[in-house]
Amino acid sequence: MSNPSSDFPHWIQQQLGRVEQALSDWVGRDAPHALGEAMRYAVLDGGKRLRPLLVLAACEATDGLQSAALRAACSVELIHAYSLVHDDMPCMDNDVLRRGKPTVHVAYGEASALLAGDALQALAFELLTPDASEEDIPSAMQATLCRLLARAAGSHGMAGGQAIDLASVGVALTRPELQRMHALKTGALLQASVVMGAACSNASSATHTALQQYGAAIGLAFQVVDDILDVTADSQTLGKTAGKDAANDKPTYVSLLGLDASRAYARQLHEEAVQALQASGLERTDTLRALADLVIERAF
Amino acid sequence: MSNPSSDFPHWIQQQLGRVEQALSDWVGRDAPHALGEAMRYAVLDGGKRLRPLLVLAACEATDGLQSAALRAACSVELIHAYSLVHDDMPCMDNDVLRRGKPTVHVAYGEASALLAGDALQALAFELLTPDASEEDIPSAMQATLCRLLARAAGSHGMAGGQAIDLASVGVALTRPELQRMHALKTGALLQASVVMGAACSNASSATHTALQQYGAAIGLAFQVVDDILDVTADSQTLGKTAGKDAANDKPTYVSLLGLDASRAYARQLHEEAVQALQASGLERTDTLRALADLVIERAF
Repeated sequence: MSNPSSDFPHWIQQQLGRVEQALSDWVGRDAPHALGEAMRYAVLDGGKRLRPLLVLAACEATDGLQSAALRAACSVELIHAYSLVHDDMPCMDNDVLRRGKPTVHVAYGEASALLAGDALQALAFELLTPDASEEDIPSAMQATLCRLLARAAGSHGMAGGQAIDLASVGVALTRPELQRMHALKTGALLQASVVMGAACSNASSATHTALQQYGAAIGLAFQVVDDILDVTADSQTLGKTAGKDAANDKPTYVSLLGLDASRAYARQLHEEAVQALQASGLERTDTLRALADLVIERAF
Repeated sequence: MSNPSSDFPHWIQQQLGRVEQALSDWVGRDAPHALGEAMRYAVLDGGKRLRPLLVLAACEATDGLQSAALRAACSVELIHAYSLVHDDMPCMDNDVLRRGKPTVHVAYGEASALLAGDALQALAFELLTPDASEEDIPSAMQATLCRLLARAAGSHGMAGGQAIDLASVGVALTRPELQRMHALKTGALLQASVVMGAACSNASSATHTALQQYGAAIGLAFQVVDDILDVTADSQTLGKTAGKDAANDKPTYVSLLGLDASRAYARQLHEEAVQALQASGLERTDTLRALADLVIERAF
């Protein structure tokens, strides 16, 4: 990849094609009709697919097994998608718009949204554990991928962060508390995406550690940028309701640090991500670097 | 196990002790406080633990790895527990009583119930994939257990059955349709419990097939018995609201076949389960046989 500025858009386009095709092949297939439809509505034709792209880029950088990475890429996207479906429900954020479309419970009813989310989570683990007749992925790799995903999704990861978020409405969090909430709520799955990509290869433990640091930095940067966009962008640009955090009196980086300091913090995290890539010992980090740029450039 | 009639109650007591202790050690540990509490409330100190007992009995019958079976036993119970939490929510069955206690959303609020259920599902897969520092379980076994659980829990299994159930309120199902719904909704996880127990060993493929048949028969028998109890038992005995299916105009075996034919069908399924055990080639099937008895005796 000698010229990332011209190759990166091409790489993105190519990988998105693979991911969209795989998701379309795998999601809601053979499910009872109404359930399958709600699952596909929740997953297909929407989203920037940042998590899948991180998985695929980390696999490529470490020269890993592509077929495993594609499954891992789809599995993290399914966990992300199910969390949005449940998060949008009336008992949570009660949001009616997502990616410019009615949310799943608005389109299919609350009960179907609940079940579709539940089924998407199970499907994530199903994709990671094909039997030999479906795809030949070493079982040690399957087990590692399941381990990483389960921890990132559960009470020590995404669901745990959502619970802290829920308990913090109207509460003044300190910066370490806000950091911990986001590290779990958004950061865990973004970091897991990078680490799962690397788990599709035989990367050294030093490389793993460096990619973990890269993943942690961009995971946090992503949330800081999200908080900035919540106050600077309009709903149409976001594809979801803007200004919602402020309206709900939710603590954000912007409410805690102000806009300028939030932008400076996003830049600092981007720099940490870049340094981690330099320390990784990997030769081909252009794509991971370009993804780090992508994460923060929306805010500037 | 020369005298099952006296050994079985002792076996049950012993295994329940192991399962309760393991669940208490593993559920909600290190989770954010409110989430961990809701998770523990949903899982601990309640339930007959039929699924864990099936896992442990199948592992014992096939001389499998006990430490893996204990994790598998807890993982199926977590999937069962999360499904009850979500099923009880207002947008689904809207039930306020479960095992004689207020349901999770009544005790902790809907948002916490939703998140606790989500986190319990993730935890099920986390338990199945310990790293070497936690417990030494071969990765091929971990991958197989995740595969079996994911398929039994998702849109081709439990969640799929719930979706059919949801769509069938007030609809006259044929017997094959009712059978399919229950085979997915309740049967898949009960059958998976047996098969996961056997997956903790090196049992032959003939043994696996026989145990699959045993699992399918008692999975169905369990649901027929549940339908019978819904009309013959009171809420206190059941620990949940009785007569609910009839009140909700849900199709059941009793509404389709009548009470006497439903009991005869339960007996026939029990006989099929016993025959599958005889065909399994296993020497020690007393405990699995006694569990089959246990499943249907509530209805007589």
